[in-house]
Amino acid sequence: MTIPQYVKIVEVGPRDGLQNEKAMVPADVKVALVNQLTDAGFVNIESASFVSPKWVPQMADGAEVMARITRRPGTLYSVLTPNMKGFEAAVAAGADEVVIFGAASEAFSQKNINCSIAESIARFEPVAAAAKEAGVRLRGSISCSLGCPYQGEVPVSAVVDVVRRMRELGCDEIDIADTIGVGTPTRVQEVMRAVSAEFAIDRLSGHFHDTYGQALSNILASLEVGIAIFHASVAGLGGCPYAKGATGNVATEDVLYMLHGMGLHTGIDLEAVVRTGDFISQAIGRPNSSRVGKALLTKWATAAEAGAATCV
Amino acid sequence: MTIPQYVKIVEVGPRDGLQNEKAMVPADVKVALVNQLTDAGFVNIESASFVSPKWVPQMADGAEVMARITRRPGTLYSVLTPNMKGFEAAVAAGADEVVIFGAASEAFSQKNINCSIAESIARFEPVAAAAKEAGVRLRGSISCSLGCPYQGEVPVSAVVDVVRRMRELGCDEIDIADTIGVGTPTRVQEVMRAVSAEFAIDRLSGHFHDTYGQALSNILASLEVGIAIFHASVAGLGGCPYAKGATGNVATEDVLYMLHGMGLHTGIDLEAVVRTGDFISQAIGRPNSSRVGKALLTKWATAAEAGAATCV
Repeated sequence: MTIPQYVKIVEVGPRDGLQNEKAMVPADVKVALVNQLTDAGFVNIESASFVSPKWVPQMADGAEVMARITRRPGTLYSVLTPNMKGFEAAVAAGADEVVIFGAASEAFSQKNINCSIAESIARFEPVAAAAKEAGVRLRGSISCSLGCPYQGEVPVSAVVDVVRRMRELGCDEIDIADTIGVGTPTRVQEVMRAVSAEFAIDRLSGHFHDTYGQALSNILASLEVGIAIFHASVAGLGGCPYAKGATGNVATEDVLYMLHGMGLHTGIDLEAVVRTGDFISQAIGRPNSSRVGKALLTKWATAAEAGAATCV
Repeated sequence: MTIPQYVKIVEVGPRDGLQNEKAMVPADVKVALVNQLTDAGFVNIESASFVSPKWVPQMADGAEVMARITRRPGTLYSVLTPNMKGFEAAVAAGADEVVIFGAASEAFSQKNINCSIAESIARFEPVAAAAKEAGVRLRGSISCSLGCPYQGEVPVSAVVDVVRRMRELGCDEIDIADTIGVGTPTRVQEVMRAVSAEFAIDRLSGHFHDTYGQALSNILASLEVGIAIFHASVAGLGGCPYAKGATGNVATEDVLYMLHGMGLHTGIDLEAVVRTGDFISQAIGRPNSSRVGKALLTKWATAAEAGAATCV
């Protein structure tokens, strides 16, 4: 297997990253964040969530954000939609892609939405049909694909089963998500190989959380079996609700540093992403979780000081 | 290439990890740290440095530490020795292995020790000869093998050249060190393949700093080309003097989590290392830099709270 030479990064910071922030992030900041990411060269930005504001108050201003961002032709702006109401709002807001979701873990599905995996996927049938009808791209996201906070191990066959169901719904792209960041490379390759027997490998993505620091090795392992789409969150935005104080999504800067270092192409300007990571971390008052972000910002600051010193 | 099934971890926290701490760490704490690591199952612990206290005041009590630790048969206690004075002190202290060092970067060598790489290695001839004479194991560590803070790129041929010189001195094991953590997987494999043409692959090690978050992917990449020895530092102890505020050595806990998750054997008890990481972080008053350490300690604390709650 040759490693894919072009890798698509789906930036999920504005949605998955911000959704768990307790203090409300102003729409102005969200719009600036999406615009900076657009300028940095991302071709896909998960920008908002049209879920009930009762569930996720942080995402209540999704329509405003979608209306105010400056779109670049060629960039897809994706929106999470739990039901027909969300789907209709997403389409009205001009979403290029809607995201539906399910878990690979029965325990997780029962505990969180009080129904089986099969039932939870079936509930998305109207949304999927409407998306096809409207010509909107449909993405399916499978949480707990590498492990579950309630049941622990998740069988590979369970992930494959959800992939099949999402394929039958007409998903254009499917995310294999390690929601709690417990996966390691060998298992990741096993899962990716199994699901790519059921769904086109160039439309499967890896969504890795860095809770146990494994995200980059899992991305490397996935690349080695041909996966070419990865999710990442600028500045590592996003915590893990199942592990207080733990890190969440893998930081986009760290992923880009690895991929570019390996000579792979993403079309994204790493330095611009580092500056965006600095902007959003300061705007929401939380530490920057990207190691590359921290290292480069420190290096630039030191170089600027040294430059200033030689001017004296 | 099959991935090695047994991986040796050299724990460098007590030496490489602590040496840059500004506040003096009491010998009691250092002894407790080494003892806990011994109990956790490490077969090699870099325990002290016999360098001039003027250079590295934190390591001035090396003889006391070596005298007070409880040794386990089968575990090697290594000591850094810059010269004959250090070597003699190390042997007197009962070091099982002495570590000599050089850079793969001319700029680094000139800037730090004011001599060429070749001269710096030649200066270790008496130490190497004395180690052979005394039957003490000799390890050579090559800094800046993946990049240099002064000259940037470091040619693979320069790393190979230092490996050859260290082989000629009689080194039993050689460390390929990414001192500033800038390496990425493809380059790491290129370097490891090149040096393994000059030195037995089962006595080459990878020493990766996590400054840019790349350490685990670089370890995975190294495993894939047959490297089976890695350095790591409990709780990620150790900063990087060239990048203020940046992380240093890869955290042992994170490495063990990946290796054990891949079904590889190390003989080390991960949970014991997590507890040791908590101990040393609290003892020296700095945040735990291990993602696995933070995640597991949080998980255990949450489970304990939940347990307590159900007792009410």
